[in-house]
Amino acid sequence: MSENMHRRRHLTTFQVIILGFAGVILLGSAILMLPVSSTKGSVTSFHDALFTATSAVCVTGLAVRDTGSYWSAFGQTVILILIQVGGLGVVTVASAVTILSGKKISLMQRSTMQDAISAPQVGGIVRLTRFILKGTFLIELCGAFLLLPVFCHDYGAKGIWMSVFHSISAFCNAGFDILGTSENTFPSLTGYTGNIMVNVVIMFLIIIGGIGFLTWEDICTNRGKLKRYRMQSKVIFATTLIFIVLPAIFFFFSDFQELSAGRRFLASLFQAITPRTAGFNTENLSNMTEVSKAVMILLMLVGGSPGSTAGGMKTTTFAVLILNAAATFRSREEVSVFGRRINNTVIKNAATIGMMYLVLFLCGGFIISVQNGIPLLDSLFEAASAVGTVGLTLGVTPELHLASRYVLIILMYLGRVGGLTLIYAVLSKKNAGNAKLPLEKITVG
Amino acid sequence: MSENMHRRRHLTTFQVIILGFAGVILLGSAILMLPVSSTKGSVTSFHDALFTATSAVCVTGLAVRDTGSYWSAFGQTVILILIQVGGLGVVTVASAVTILSGKKISLMQRSTMQDAISAPQVGGIVRLTRFILKGTFLIELCGAFLLLPVFCHDYGAKGIWMSVFHSISAFCNAGFDILGTSENTFPSLTGYTGNIMVNVVIMFLIIIGGIGFLTWEDICTNRGKLKRYRMQSKVIFATTLIFIVLPAIFFFFSDFQELSAGRRFLASLFQAITPRTAGFNTENLSNMTEVSKAVMILLMLVGGSPGSTAGGMKTTTFAVLILNAAATFRSREEVSVFGRRINNTVIKNAATIGMMYLVLFLCGGFIISVQNGIPLLDSLFEAASAVGTVGLTLGVTPELHLASRYVLIILMYLGRVGGLTLIYAVLSKKNAGNAKLPLEKITVG
Ligand SMILES: [K+]
Ligand SMILES: [K+]
Repeated sequence: MSENMHRRRHLTTFQVIILGFAGVILLGSAILMLPVSSTKGSVTSFHDALFTATSAVCVTGLAVRDTGSYWSAFGQTVILILIQVGGLGVVTVASAVTILSGKKISLMQRSTMQDAISAPQVGGIVRLTRFILKGTFLIELCGAFLLLPVFCHDYGAKGIWMSVFHSISAFCNAGFDILGTSENTFPSLTGYTGNIMVNVVIMFLIIIGGIGFLTWEDICTNRGKLKRYRMQSKVIFATTLIFIVLPAIFFFFSDFQELSAGRRFLASLFQAITPRTAGFNTENLSNMTEVSKAVMILLMLVGGSPGSTAGGMKTTTFAVLILNAAATFRSREEVSVFGRRINNTVIKNAATIGMMYLVLFLCGGFIISVQNGIPLLDSLFEAASAVGTVGLTLGVTPELHLASRYVLIILMYLGRVGGLTLIYAVLSKKNAGNAKLPLEKITVG
Repeated sequence: MSENMHRRRHLTTFQVIILGFAGVILLGSAILMLPVSSTKGSVTSFHDALFTATSAVCVTGLAVRDTGSYWSAFGQTVILILIQVGGLGVVTVASAVTILSGKKISLMQRSTMQDAISAPQVGGIVRLTRFILKGTFLIELCGAFLLLPVFCHDYGAKGIWMSVFHSISAFCNAGFDILGTSENTFPSLTGYTGNIMVNVVIMFLIIIGGIGFLTWEDICTNRGKLKRYRMQSKVIFATTLIFIVLPAIFFFFSDFQELSAGRRFLASLFQAITPRTAGFNTENLSNMTEVSKAVMILLMLVGGSPGSTAGGMKTTTFAVLILNAAATFRSREEVSVFGRRINNTVIKNAATIGMMYLVLFLCGGFIISVQNGIPLLDSLFEAASAVGTVGLTLGVTPELHLASRYVLIILMYLGRVGGLTLIYAVLSKKNAGNAKLPLEKITVG
């Protein structure tokens, strides 16, 4: 019976997460449709508004309208708010509002919050929420201050808005930029390839946003005592490091041959960090080799860490699958890492999530390629970018057919809300008998 | 202690399988190097002989030398013997020799045999070996007789050799053909696109060879009583059917637009069956759309059924991963199908095998693309073809750099011997303490 109650609670909290995201997206779309949101002062079509709002709330960064030139200051502010809400998570924001307004947070809210950020226990949720909010704003503020000199030098007073926007966009792994003009749309950070300050600040914001709220908490609690860190935090550190260093080295030797060694190092490092899952780019990605594009697709699918502003199947999922393979090869029955065992259910979930991201990515890419007659690699890149909520593109987004745009909208939503959250909510009612069926052998491989 | 003994036995049998395959490959290479093996009567380089022997023993069908025009009748016979040995499995052949020579089969041989064909128990292995041998030769004989009229009409007396060769090559899912001439190399079956007899016979041989020896036994034992079939056989029937019908429909609508409806149907069906993992083609695959090529890559990776002449990660592996995903989505703790539960260890192994094939396929494809400067999709196609022991190619095999050919040799070997077999053999010595470490939560997805 206690298990049943547990399930009913899950069902409700997951439904809250899903409906919360959907509600914010629809509200955002409605506001973005208003004439005041565009620079031209005309009504934006529902399709474009929905795409933009979904991209913002799901912190993806794919855009059918250039953010810098199409949307007005008001529209950009709406987008920034959507990014901030989407980055923190709808539930965290709702809890924050309750806490800040002085009301008591309900048990229901506590457990929803726990599921939303994958916290290990319900206790201390209020403290954790405060911690997340304080941390987020502090880091975003630091980022904005550090970007201020560069943008104020280039844009004058408007540079303040620029700094705030890009700091938040980077920390939330959103990848939206407002550097576009009507002559030069969708530039991302290509104008700042060689600017060390912009590169370093943005990279740090991306990484800090992408390692997850619980990992911060572990860092703040345990500081130098690495042994006392959660196993999950250690796994996140290891995978994050590997997935930055290896691709950076690869890109350094295979791409950007026309740049000087220093700028090439910077460009390689930035393009290694951004696919998981920030979505800024400082170089034109279309010029990269096919293999580099494929490596980026893999990085986009892996994504960031759980309970963070980043998307993708998550570093921990990938790590668990690798650890499982290592355990099989060493013919160990139990999968373990850093002196801790990993549950079989976790491994099965990881396999499911990996499978789901692969299926969504491949189906999406195939549909987009067939429908628009564009090269398969570009379509797969676009699909991986959407389902991983990355926002990088080889330049095809604004030219896609309407149906393909809706494919991207669905991929972004599923990618952000997390497949499991969605599916548990929809299907877990059916959870029926645990009656043990007879076991039968089946050969694999 | 009994577990230790079990492990030692496993270690030995797996080593026997690996070394057996390697030994046959090296012996075959040596014979193929002899002047008598080539039509020109000159010594063949070790690289080319090794590639051809590996491709034959691993029943892949990739070729750096056109089988029909480069190799003499003697060389072709050697290749055919290698195919037959590789298709049945080195261990099955060794057991067969023992049994046929009237000697008593040792316990060691029995258990090796059991591992080699993934039989459920050691008992009845002799009976099973006889059954496999009889079945194989009977079906290959039927196939050859049915092909006789066509090939004798086109080639006269040489048609008998043609029929035997292609019947064995199809049943063993080898994909080698001897239809090439010095003017028209590597034709595969493109000369018989519209020939219903050749198409149907070859398709049946491929399917029967690819569903696995144990599945035949199930069919012969239980015939119409579907309920009494092994769960594994049912899974194999279901996946085989799905992976033939769906791709055939897709190819029918996306490719071969220039053919008449009837021939288009035949071409679509043939090209849907051949990637798993026969390797013949009746149409020029380079003319297919990019998405169709990608679908073929997926089919090649999935491959045939366990304990068969086919390669790939196996239909059952894929089915177990899909079933696991379905169970997660329905929040069931146990994975089940056809009224039977599937063990957690099986699911973890399936995840490992899936991961391993993906990693080998991606690494191989990336290396080939970078080294030879050919399009990524073509390289990935080539790598999937090698690791799935399929033998389809977009025409790049003979032009590859030497290093890339060795990459293909390694992929073919690992793909055929089966990753787990290899790795258990090499690493299982290390299998150490089962001391239970503390369990710790980790969030995935
Ligand atoms: K993003
Ligand atoms: K083959």
